[in-house]
Amino acid sequence: MPQLDLSVSSVDLTRALCDIPSVSGDETPLADAIHDALRGHDHLELFRDGDTIVARTDLGRPQRVAIAGHIDTVPINGNVPTRDIEIDGEPYLWGRGTVDMKAGVAVQLHLAAALADPRVDITWMWYDHEEVDASQNGLNRLSQNRPDLFAADFAILGEPSNGEVEGGCNGTLRVIVRTHGVRAHSARAWIGENAIHAAAPVLERLARYRPRDVAVEGLVYREGLNAVRIGGGIAGNVIPDACEVEVNYRFAPSRSVEKAVAHVRNVFEGFEVELTDASAGARPGLDAPLAQEFVQAVGAVPQPKYGWTDVARFSALGIPAVNYGPGDPHLAHHDEERVAVAQIEAVERGLRAWLSPS
Amino acid sequence: MPQLDLSVSSVDLTRALCDIPSVSGDETPLADAIHDALRGHDHLELFRDGDTIVARTDLGRPQRVAIAGHIDTVPINGNVPTRDIEIDGEPYLWGRGTVDMKAGVAVQLHLAAALADPRVDITWMWYDHEEVDASQNGLNRLSQNRPDLFAADFAILGEPSNGEVEGGCNGTLRVIVRTHGVRAHSARAWIGENAIHAAAPVLERLARYRPRDVAVEGLVYREGLNAVRIGGGIAGNVIPDACEVEVNYRFAPSRSVEKAVAHVRNVFEGFEVELTDASAGARPGLDAPLAQEFVQAVGAVPQPKYGWTDVARFSALGIPAVNYGPGDPHLAHHDEERVAVAQIEAVERGLRAWLSPS
Repeated sequence: MPQLDLSVSSVDLTRALCDIPSVSGDETPLADAIHDALRGHDHLELFRDGDTIVARTDLGRPQRVAIAGHIDTVPINGNVPTRDIEIDGEPYLWGRGTVDMKAGVAVQLHLAAALADPRVDITWMWYDHEEVDASQNGLNRLSQNRPDLFAADFAILGEPSNGEVEGGCNGTLRVIVRTHGVRAHSARAWIGENAIHAAAPVLERLARYRPRDVAVEGLVYREGLNAVRIGGGIAGNVIPDACEVEVNYRFAPSRSVEKAVAHVRNVFEGFEVELTDASAGARPGLDAPLAQEFVQAVGAVPQPKYGWTDVARFSALGIPAVNYGPGDPHLAHHDEERVAVAQIEAVERGLRAWLSPS
Repeated sequence: MPQLDLSVSSVDLTRALCDIPSVSGDETPLADAIHDALRGHDHLELFRDGDTIVARTDLGRPQRVAIAGHIDTVPINGNVPTRDIEIDGEPYLWGRGTVDMKAGVAVQLHLAAALADPRVDITWMWYDHEEVDASQNGLNRLSQNRPDLFAADFAILGEPSNGEVEGGCNGTLRVIVRTHGVRAHSARAWIGENAIHAAAPVLERLARYRPRDVAVEGLVYREGLNAVRIGGGIAGNVIPDACEVEVNYRFAPSRSVEKAVAHVRNVFEGFEVELTDASAGARPGLDAPLAQEFVQAVGAVPQPKYGWTDVARFSALGIPAVNYGPGDPHLAHHDEERVAVAQIEAVERGLRAWLSPS
């Protein structure tokens, strides 16, 4: 079993975590190593659910914070092991997982081991299967198997946010908009009815749609309504009888899933619309006192999070939650995924400043 | 080797031909059987090129007619062997190839054997690989290997035409119309540019396009411009950077390929248009004296042929050519492919009346 030393710097620990491959579904060796490395830290109570590890302090503090990160990555593409590189004289760690999100996990693991006496009780959570279908998500599974572990006043998710505090997240839903026609040989097209032509107004409505900018608790969320896939056609000489446009709607956290679905149905009025998946957004929750203290302690100007993240799971449980982690989210899943060493150090400093006894 | 008796009725011969499977690429057993059955008919000179068989009279007649049919079929789908069925009291032969086009070939083979003294010289052609890519077409191959065999004043192709004379055929071409964009995560769509949305005007122009009806030598050809396929998209959370619409244009034989391509480029002005294949149409050629005699002899009112057929190959060689064969073209390739026995007999009567010495 690979060994992890949580006392090394967060940067060295990032490198070590990335060099233990943990593509979704293959997290066990890394989960084993994390579990093993945490044993022997007497201030932490350990729980395990599959490849999700929970470490809790129980110091009787009046407030408790959940701090979480996923340990899986998208598939490796020639970018493991990690390499030390420099860009414009600045050091980076390059490789799969450096951004999404082993640097964040490294900071958390290092602080979990180091902070025996934090000013709030902490429930650390490292979970599996975040990069795949939501039904497999380890945090979701844990919330069903051990809801008691989700007692918290505030939550921080270490998703890459360039070391900024990103509040809440947009909701997301997907629909299939379908058109129908009648198949015929294209030499006698007038016998049929062209389903691809019938999709013209669908694309036209998408093209002229102007997404909203919505202020929620002081942060401005940009929405988006986009075709992400289109398909139709049988053969080069057949009038197609079906066309499908898959549409993704990203909506501000002030809009419920129900209202979001109604909006999309309204946009495509007159067409068959099938909802295929939907996840509510998360309000930034920055009006919570703990959140305000946190923002002040790390010296950040909160930004909205556009992408959907697991903060929405905490939010749905009534726990205000923010994203805070090293790494540029634009480089997540990228073959040239890389994190600035300085960002890892800054996030560690930020979290440490806030969690240390005052 | 299966045996064929060309002296049986065209109906019985149709059944026998259909029961020797000859899906494109597997025509050899049938070609062997045809070649063997024609041997010993002293009025016919035989040629073979791969699985294409040519049988020629050489009676010194002032005029020569080419009469052709393909011997391959589309794949069998539980519809061989042939069955005798009745619909509304009318007898049919049911099964793969009955329409497209072994009934036509049967009439031709029967008459080739029977008519030792026709009023015109005849070049009979039975060829392979019509139902697949044009580059494999046996008639095309023969025209390159033995151009001398294509000396003719008029040509009849036995493609199913419901026993009507269908003159010429529409041309056909295909283009890919492409739009481009910039890939981005759909949570931050404003960073990207949606190539599917950019295809809205392409579909809109197709939807509002009004195809022409064009009179050529007294026959009215209906044109058509249709999307036959559309595709685009990478994943459910990615703004697509490319979208492709495949468009099929069927154009009247009075329009050249060059003019047809120019027309399509004009329709999609402002978009990337790639021509993927094009075949010229064929003028009906019904003003040729032999064609007029033929139409009169079979007692037909000529119709335009909408689908592209190999008459265009004869037409391109300067030989007026028509389609004339038993079977409803709408049932070609159909799993319920079937031909009315009466149509086989009518086409045999028609051809015999015209070809017999006056």
